[in-house]
Amino acid sequence: MIGLWLEGGELRLASNLVRPEPKEDEALIRLRLAGICNTDLEMVRGYYPFTGILGHEFVGVVEQAPSGHEALVGHRVVGEINAVCGNCAACRAGRSNHCMNRTVLGIVRRDGAFAEYLTLPTRNLHVVPDEVPDEVAVFAEPLAAALQIQEQVEIGGSHRVLVVGDGKLGQLIARTLALTGAKLVVAGRHREKLAPLAAAGVDTVHVTGAGPASELTEFDIAVECTGSPAGFETAGQALRPRGTLVMKSTYADRLTIDASRLVVDEITLVGSRCGPFAPALELLASGELRVDDLVAARYPLENGLRALEHARRPGVLKVLLSAR
Amino acid sequence: MIGLWLEGGELRLASNLVRPEPKEDEALIRLRLAGICNTDLEMVRGYYPFTGILGHEFVGVVEQAPSGHEALVGHRVVGEINAVCGNCAACRAGRSNHCMNRTVLGIVRRDGAFAEYLTLPTRNLHVVPDEVPDEVAVFAEPLAAALQIQEQVEIGGSHRVLVVGDGKLGQLIARTLALTGAKLVVAGRHREKLAPLAAAGVDTVHVTGAGPASELTEFDIAVECTGSPAGFETAGQALRPRGTLVMKSTYADRLTIDASRLVVDEITLVGSRCGPFAPALELLASGELRVDDLVAARYPLENGLRALEHARRPGVLKVLLSAR
Repeated sequence: MIGLWLEGGELRLASNLVRPEPKEDEALIRLRLAGICNTDLEMVRGYYPFTGILGHEFVGVVEQAPSGHEALVGHRVVGEINAVCGNCAACRAGRSNHCMNRTVLGIVRRDGAFAEYLTLPTRNLHVVPDEVPDEVAVFAEPLAAALQIQEQVEIGGSHRVLVVGDGKLGQLIARTLALTGAKLVVAGRHREKLAPLAAAGVDTVHVTGAGPASELTEFDIAVECTGSPAGFETAGQALRPRGTLVMKSTYADRLTIDASRLVVDEITLVGSRCGPFAPALELLASGELRVDDLVAARYPLENGLRALEHARRPGVLKVLLSAR
Repeated sequence: MIGLWLEGGELRLASNLVRPEPKEDEALIRLRLAGICNTDLEMVRGYYPFTGILGHEFVGVVEQAPSGHEALVGHRVVGEINAVCGNCAACRAGRSNHCMNRTVLGIVRRDGAFAEYLTLPTRNLHVVPDEVPDEVAVFAEPLAAALQIQEQVEIGGSHRVLVVGDGKLGQLIARTLALTGAKLVVAGRHREKLAPLAAAGVDTVHVTGAGPASELTEFDIAVECTGSPAGFETAGQALRPRGTLVMKSTYADRLTIDASRLVVDEITLVGSRCGPFAPALELLASGELRVDDLVAARYPLENGLRALEHARRPGVLKVLLSAR
């Protein structure tokens, strides 16, 4: 089969990959559509040493399922990316996304979704409702990550919330937070990315490269989605004392912070990663949260390298890869 | 009157200070006993630009009180250090310790307690129960700061909690946390400071300078009380995924952190500063929490400069200053 293979920091289109054999708790899934995430781009840049098939956002069809799960066969599914042991201290404590023995689709010791076939444990799979098209369902994984913020921090109509970053993840986060009734502002560097949010009634602030935007102050909650020190600075300076800064992006390098300000102003910093799929799929099925306007381009899997080049260009939102 | 005056980063004993005039909401307090805090030592080192009388931990007697508060006169009091406006957004939101217009005793635009007399608003004062001697009451302010942790983070018998730092504040924090029933470990660099904790039944770990102690892992909560990058590293590495790191010390410099680890492991960082006086005084009155063994030395106010020198020596716990 064909797939995008990462090795030694180099990504190539491989056409001689062996179709994966599902283990006893796993299903075999034929890819329909995959999404390119910033994490994929950073992995190619060497953020994390990984050898294998890249990719973790997908929608596919189950072709083969283990005994007891045959009902999945033929259904479209999306999948949680952490494959967990169920037995370690983290799993037993109900924090299975932090399983000490986990593999992670296309990220940690598990081949990913940028290929004709992939495998995942059946317990990771969620059947996609018929009314949700592929190009919407493929957003389930990043949308779940956006919803994780609300699992960790209570956000409601009384809160002033700032989202820093107008990229793919920032857009999804802003759209989930807009539904909470919070007083939402999105700060970003790209007028063309802020425009659709503004059109949807969200307050937006265009920030330039020169330091944090000084008019952004007294927010209860700030969500940092840029992965850059400048974005972190903007988010931190915008918070009121006892405010909460949610960190939603990984950072290529170590980050230097003003720790005394955290202490004196009693700021809370919350790291946030993967989230719940069921509410993400429900939200996509409800039509309450639009994602189709986030798609910048769609490439066949064979042109995957060009697709990643496209995704890397400044100002580009979601680039999709479709199987034949 | 005499007092310890800080100006241009230089501390001197001044004997010609004017006795302060209380404003309309303030009481005049005659000092009995004051405590030297690490913040005082850092202010002399230039951590924060301040000109005036240093000191914020004290017990004193009210000599003069405004109309309606005459009942305070003659009573021993301790005092909350933030003098607040009551009208700003922070005060109206119930976060008066973060008042935007606050002055802070001996720290921000308000003369402090290392002098024969000081003033504070009457609403800042708490009468000391008769059965609590001065040398115990003087711990009310740092003990309140220690108790603030439990205002911000739920800590109970099911939690494994690490306190990093065996200094003055670490000792108080460890003693408050021991009362929660949490499984407590204190990590410190000074065998002689860990000894009394060990004697009181607290698990202690002696750490050396060479990196974080690798045997400290899988803690639910870690409290950093050293104000050093090494202490922060030890606290961070000891946490399980989704653990909470409480930052209780100010840092002289900016701090460099592994932000991706915060995100991937969904760590929460909580800055923590001043705390509630009433429960601190209750705890001191109950005798449940011992503080007398934390006193390293007591100097008359006139020998205040020598007292600060003593407090600065490695391994020294609380040094007190007594008025005549």
